[in-house]
Amino acid sequence: VQTLRIALVGFGVVGQSLAKLFLLKEQEFANVYGMKPNVICIIDRNGLAMDDKGLNLRGILEKKRRTGTVGRSKGEKPNAVIIKSTDADVLVETTPTNFKSGEPGLSHIKAAFQAKMSVVTANKGPLAVAFQALMELARHNNVFLRFSGAVGGGTPILDFGKSCSRGDTLIGIEGILNSTTNFILTNMERQNLSFEEALKSAQKHGYAEADPSLDIDGFDSAVKLVIIVNYLTKRAFTVRDVKITGIREVSIADVQRARDKGKAIRLIASANERLSVEPRLIDRDDPMCVSGPYNAVKFFCKNSGEKVIVGKGAGGMETASSIIRDMLEIRDLLAGRGLT
Amino acid sequence: VQTLRIALVGFGVVGQSLAKLFLLKEQEFANVYGMKPNVICIIDRNGLAMDDKGLNLRGILEKKRRTGTVGRSKGEKPNAVIIKSTDADVLVETTPTNFKSGEPGLSHIKAAFQAKMSVVTANKGPLAVAFQALMELARHNNVFLRFSGAVGGGTPILDFGKSCSRGDTLIGIEGILNSTTNFILTNMERQNLSFEEALKSAQKHGYAEADPSLDIDGFDSAVKLVIIVNYLTKRAFTVRDVKITGIREVSIADVQRARDKGKAIRLIASANERLSVEPRLIDRDDPMCVSGPYNAVKFFCKNSGEKVIVGKGAGGMETASSIIRDMLEIRDLLAGRGLT
Repeated sequence: VQTLRIALVGFGVVGQSLAKLFLLKEQEFANVYGMKPNVICIIDRNGLAMDDKGLNLRGILEKKRRTGTVGRSKGEKPNAVIIKSTDADVLVETTPTNFKSGEPGLSHIKAAFQAKMSVVTANKGPLAVAFQALMELARHNNVFLRFSGAVGGGTPILDFGKSCSRGDTLIGIEGILNSTTNFILTNMERQNLSFEEALKSAQKHGYAEADPSLDIDGFDSAVKLVIIVNYLTKRAFTVRDVKITGIREVSIADVQRARDKGKAIRLIASANERLSVEPRLIDRDDPMCVSGPYNAVKFFCKNSGEKVIVGKGAGGMETASSIIRDMLEIRDLLAGRGLT
Repeated sequence: VQTLRIALVGFGVVGQSLAKLFLLKEQEFANVYGMKPNVICIIDRNGLAMDDKGLNLRGILEKKRRTGTVGRSKGEKPNAVIIKSTDADVLVETTPTNFKSGEPGLSHIKAAFQAKMSVVTANKGPLAVAFQALMELARHNNVFLRFSGAVGGGTPILDFGKSCSRGDTLIGIEGILNSTTNFILTNMERQNLSFEEALKSAQKHGYAEADPSLDIDGFDSAVKLVIIVNYLTKRAFTVRDVKITGIREVSIADVQRARDKGKAIRLIASANERLSVEPRLIDRDDPMCVSGPYNAVKFFCKNSGEKVIVGKGAGGMETASSIIRDMLEIRDLLAGRGLT
């Protein structure tokens, strides 16, 4: 059984879910994958827990629950300095997303690469701001960057797109990439609500943020589209390349008219000659036409036709599962290279 | 650029589509994958074409079109003997499916393994009859067996299932695995046809065989379910373990009653505590509820929830694309082992 030394920065819902999965799956990891994940460092907003021999995750989860932080105060040291001082193989980055600066995630990821650590992140911020720069920095330092959890929560959209395009030519992508807007549009349809009423209901059910603009104005979908396209086609698009229209202007009359024609309005992110995010009329029979808090992505392949993947867009456990998938892949890549 | 020596046995729609893709994608294979597929042997029902330096595929496709066969007569030699005499790295098996004996595919695959060749097949017959025996024989001879095209045509159902279960626990599978029956049920629904009328229409459109019983009585779905489950869970089920009910008894009244309740009748293959194939009532909003000649499979994962994959179930080019994906995987596996 091979030990993988792990540092976590960010210990919110996703980080804690990951720690719980490590505890739950200790036996399975050893038996099925021959791997022992050993968390040697956790950094959260205010605190730091570190032990080169491996932290007691049960104790730390309990401490976080009781005190709101994982350990003693970090003092003045920047996180990047702490990250570089650890001897981890992989950094898992799950701090809050900032689409403008990418920080603090961006500095964390760069610090890890400079210290020759691979990175798994579920944080869209750094990827939105500096996708190609980060990919290049990883290559330059001979380490790996994976980010399944940043797009589609637990649904392996990136893996699936790669598998679809292998040996075939990807000629287009369309998808519903934001489950909050899909929840809202579905409720306008099902319960005859106006946009404002459906938004309030989504907020009440915990599906929309207090400030929902990143979702409903299409920005979150655009960022995910850019990540998917850059990853699968090795391009260097940014969100500024996406023509974005959100769902604020969708009226109850629009939704009803669509329904009467056997169609539905969905916020569709699409990439063919150009990149766009906009509300569109689609057939109810289209496999991409999901209802409720789901994501759906359709890949158009030259020889093998259209393929669609559908799954829940978010959730702590779902995203933590994606992080584990990415970690296992990085473990295999490192092993193939003979470095561990 | 690495050469992969290939033998084809079976040269119907799928085999010819594969040859066309090899011609079309020669540059792409070299540039993107560093691979040159070199077909050194093609066996069809009556003929044989062989050239250790590589066959002229354009000429052979033309000859097949003109004369119905690929080359000179095979004489008395069994295919298994011819296969063993070639120096191929990979055998591609696409002869007609026989669910009872698995032949002739079964003998072809065994011969290849004995000669230390890996195999890619789109033929469900041998897998239905001897799945675990074949997997074991491949391991024993230190070669690989892949069969994406046998389940779902061009849709990477097996890859997707593997990706879903990696680092998570697969707790159930449900799916629409036969596009012919789905085409029939959809047309009963949309055009108010009886089962017999919808079946005739499917036959007219080329979606159903002259003898459609393997599809409509559920056997084809059961075989695919067994292949998926055995592959993903390393079990050794056979079709006899599946409780099978087909769609012959579905009446126009059943279909209309379902529609009036916002539901639909679909032939669902399912694996949880037990394996079954039967017509079931499902929600129209269920992402698995596809209409027309599609396949859809839902994987239930313990931590990351439900995920669905949808794609066209069949077609020569689609299946040939799956064969290419499998070949690329085998090339990587052989390369990782340092044998080529």
